[in-house]
Amino acid sequence: MSERIPRVVIVGGGFGGLAAAKALRRTLAQVTLIDRANHHLFQPLLYQVATSVLTPGQIASPIRGILRNQKNVTVILGEVTGVDKDRHCVLANSADREGVPLPYDYLILATGVRHSYFGHNEFERFAPGLKSLADAVAIRNKILQAFEQAEAEEDPSLHRDLLTFVLVGAGPTGVEMAGAIAVLIRTTLRSEFRRIDPASARIVLLDMAPRVLGPFSENLSQAAKERLEKLGVEVRLGHGVDQIDDDGVIVAGERIVSKTVIWTAGVAPSPAGKWLGVETDRAGRVRIEKDLTVPGHPEIFVVGDTAALEQDGKPLPGVAQVAIQQGRYAGKLIHSRITGSATPAPFRYFDKGNMAVVGKGFAVLQSGKIHLSGFPAWLAWAAVHLEFLATSSLRVSVFVQWVWTYLTGQRGSRLIVSYHGSAQIKPKPSPPPLVQPLQAGKELQPQR
Amino acid sequence: MSERIPRVVIVGGGFGGLAAAKALRRTLAQVTLIDRANHHLFQPLLYQVATSVLTPGQIASPIRGILRNQKNVTVILGEVTGVDKDRHCVLANSADREGVPLPYDYLILATGVRHSYFGHNEFERFAPGLKSLADAVAIRNKILQAFEQAEAEEDPSLHRDLLTFVLVGAGPTGVEMAGAIAVLIRTTLRSEFRRIDPASARIVLLDMAPRVLGPFSENLSQAAKERLEKLGVEVRLGHGVDQIDDDGVIVAGERIVSKTVIWTAGVAPSPAGKWLGVETDRAGRVRIEKDLTVPGHPEIFVVGDTAALEQDGKPLPGVAQVAIQQGRYAGKLIHSRITGSATPAPFRYFDKGNMAVVGKGFAVLQSGKIHLSGFPAWLAWAAVHLEFLATSSLRVSVFVQWVWTYLTGQRGSRLIVSYHGSAQIKPKPSPPPLVQPLQAGKELQPQR
Repeated sequence: MSERIPRVVIVGGGFGGLAAAKALRRTLAQVTLIDRANHHLFQPLLYQVATSVLTPGQIASPIRGILRNQKNVTVILGEVTGVDKDRHCVLANSADREGVPLPYDYLILATGVRHSYFGHNEFERFAPGLKSLADAVAIRNKILQAFEQAEAEEDPSLHRDLLTFVLVGAGPTGVEMAGAIAVLIRTTLRSEFRRIDPASARIVLLDMAPRVLGPFSENLSQAAKERLEKLGVEVRLGHGVDQIDDDGVIVAGERIVSKTVIWTAGVAPSPAGKWLGVETDRAGRVRIEKDLTVPGHPEIFVVGDTAALEQDGKPLPGVAQVAIQQGRYAGKLIHSRITGSATPAPFRYFDKGNMAVVGKGFAVLQSGKIHLSGFPAWLAWAAVHLEFLATSSLRVSVFVQWVWTYLTGQRGSRLIVSYHGSAQIKPKPSPPPLVQPLQAGKELQPQR
Repeated sequence: MSERIPRVVIVGGGFGGLAAAKALRRTLAQVTLIDRANHHLFQPLLYQVATSVLTPGQIASPIRGILRNQKNVTVILGEVTGVDKDRHCVLANSADREGVPLPYDYLILATGVRHSYFGHNEFERFAPGLKSLADAVAIRNKILQAFEQAEAEEDPSLHRDLLTFVLVGAGPTGVEMAGAIAVLIRTTLRSEFRRIDPASARIVLLDMAPRVLGPFSENLSQAAKERLEKLGVEVRLGHGVDQIDDDGVIVAGERIVSKTVIWTAGVAPSPAGKWLGVETDRAGRVRIEKDLTVPGHPEIFVVGDTAALEQDGKPLPGVAQVAIQQGRYAGKLIHSRITGSATPAPFRYFDKGNMAVVGKGFAVLQSGKIHLSGFPAWLAWAAVHLEFLATSSLRVSVFVQWVWTYLTGQRGSRLIVSYHGSAQIKPKPSPPPLVQPLQAGKELQPQR
């Protein structure tokens, strides 16, 4: 290493990127974390924003607030557009400029996934997916608006179509969302309408797989399905959707008329593989070595959902725990290289297990040999999710909200709001300035 | 009255409309409240959303949730486009239809105001105003984004322009906003940035009037101004803005370069006067009788900011208390007409006083002969504002947030989010159905 303070660029402030930044807190390095959002999003609870239980502010926290005391990190709001591997630069749109180069000695790409329509992008218009706060608020608007439209609609024959909700994809997101909508209509919305009965709403959960919650054991899948059916959800398995349009969906040749279709199926990785011009798996995830680096580039790490790595012959799943453990590993490995300390053993994922909520006070939990369903699993779910929220104030806020909602049926945020204004990075074409290294000084002292 | 249950249509779910609906809770009437938003908004705290203290969900509550137990009210999400006085119908876009007629026997218009650019609508693009949740979120985005841009900007000479905030209008909104931004930069944002010092931001408060907080006494104006200056706000009085554009403002011939200009000046009433085709004052507010009805139309009431009424030779101010007292009066008068009970005495506004917050733990308060400034006034302000929030859960939530923010400097919601999706009423041109009266039945039983 030269005498210059090494530069680490982390792209993405999700679970992987944040874990990497925190693992570098004692490293004499100039860390830059760039994200196109100003907040870290706790995605596992996004469905609770979409169903009005929590507000956006309860599951998202400004990245620079989380890292405020880690003085070796600079947080930049900007959108990465590419990587120049030869010049060791990330290219980004930020501060009204296009293609600003961010030079790195070490690069960590933790850029996650978006939802994918499996080649049917025309479905997106009719069936929004759920990956960002904006998605969640759009789906919340859509669900609440369906009830408003039905109440304003004086022709009762149209109420049925307006109050049919179709969820495409019965993985954790689809199951949790279906359960949450079922609880919404039976508790919160009850007795608020005069012309319609919200509880008469029809909720249909579709999947081409033969069972819900594929990653769980058959017993737990079955328990989740039975619970959903008890909540009034129609679970239809074994057929993919043939069509999604303005009038609903077509599945197994049958038209289900619905004004509210929500996409809870697959995901596609970020374009990290394209930026790097390296080998990806079929889905587009970057194939990485056992130390999470890109083959031939020991200075470039890819972690989390956008990376493809096998362990014991099976690909690692796209869950928060993999991203967290990989981000932490990449940070530690970079620390060892910078300090010249012992290199950690190859990455190994420790599987803590899987959980999914079904409705109110019921979850399924699978961890090693432990298979649980019901209220105890829900308590465990609640405890773990509170634990992993980014800040203690969010923990308190979400905990209080859950207790309140559990007891009263009242929800945190049932607003229908169309926000104008824009938080997009709007780059103006202007000559990119030469990048000055940050002045080393007090803000670059590592924490002890 | 015929034997048919009388129909009361209330347009607007703000302070006036809600008060009117509640005053009708024991009346055997079929009340329809229509609003283009699904929520009642507590506007006096809107500046706290714009400055990240509170989340949108903490100052807004679904109207149908507030009125859930009042079974004689039907709440409709829709946008009123006109009034047909002869046919006794309100015309509205709702449930995907245009021009749906809502027949009434009594009509209460409580449609409020929007901000006004005094004939300079071209200013709106550069200087957003603050009246709705969407406005508040747009301004929050704009303020937070200015700091993000400055941090991402490597040329320090541009930092000054990016960190100059100009507020046009030094009434309560401008004063409260200026104080809140000053506190934001000195507490919450402190130590989160590496390249910029948020506390170096420049806050300029402009007004053409010779003092801030015009409706208050000179002493209190002076106290507020001194407090603002202590917080580092530049208060410039006695000159209107000549120009607002992409580069900032021009005032008294001087250019103040700023990327963040916020409009906190005048308001203009809703088009209620145009809908009715009746006499308005110069500002466009409907002139009403002492019983709040439109001259010649004893069945049409106009209340709140969109009405013009003088008392003791002075026009009533556009504040929440006037709207609440007028809404309640209109409801009671309609109740007396329907039940044939004694007609209430002409409306008389009881002035409880005025308050404005300046920064943290400091307010000015003027009520009758009581003139207060400082921390005691702030406590009174906090108590009164908690009291008037729509639901007890909001009261608890806002109270906890205030204590938290006061003690830690941490804020509720510092998210920069561009929400897509839309909550606008998107009418499809289709033949308006004939309006069927609601079936009288259990849902129309008045409460006892």
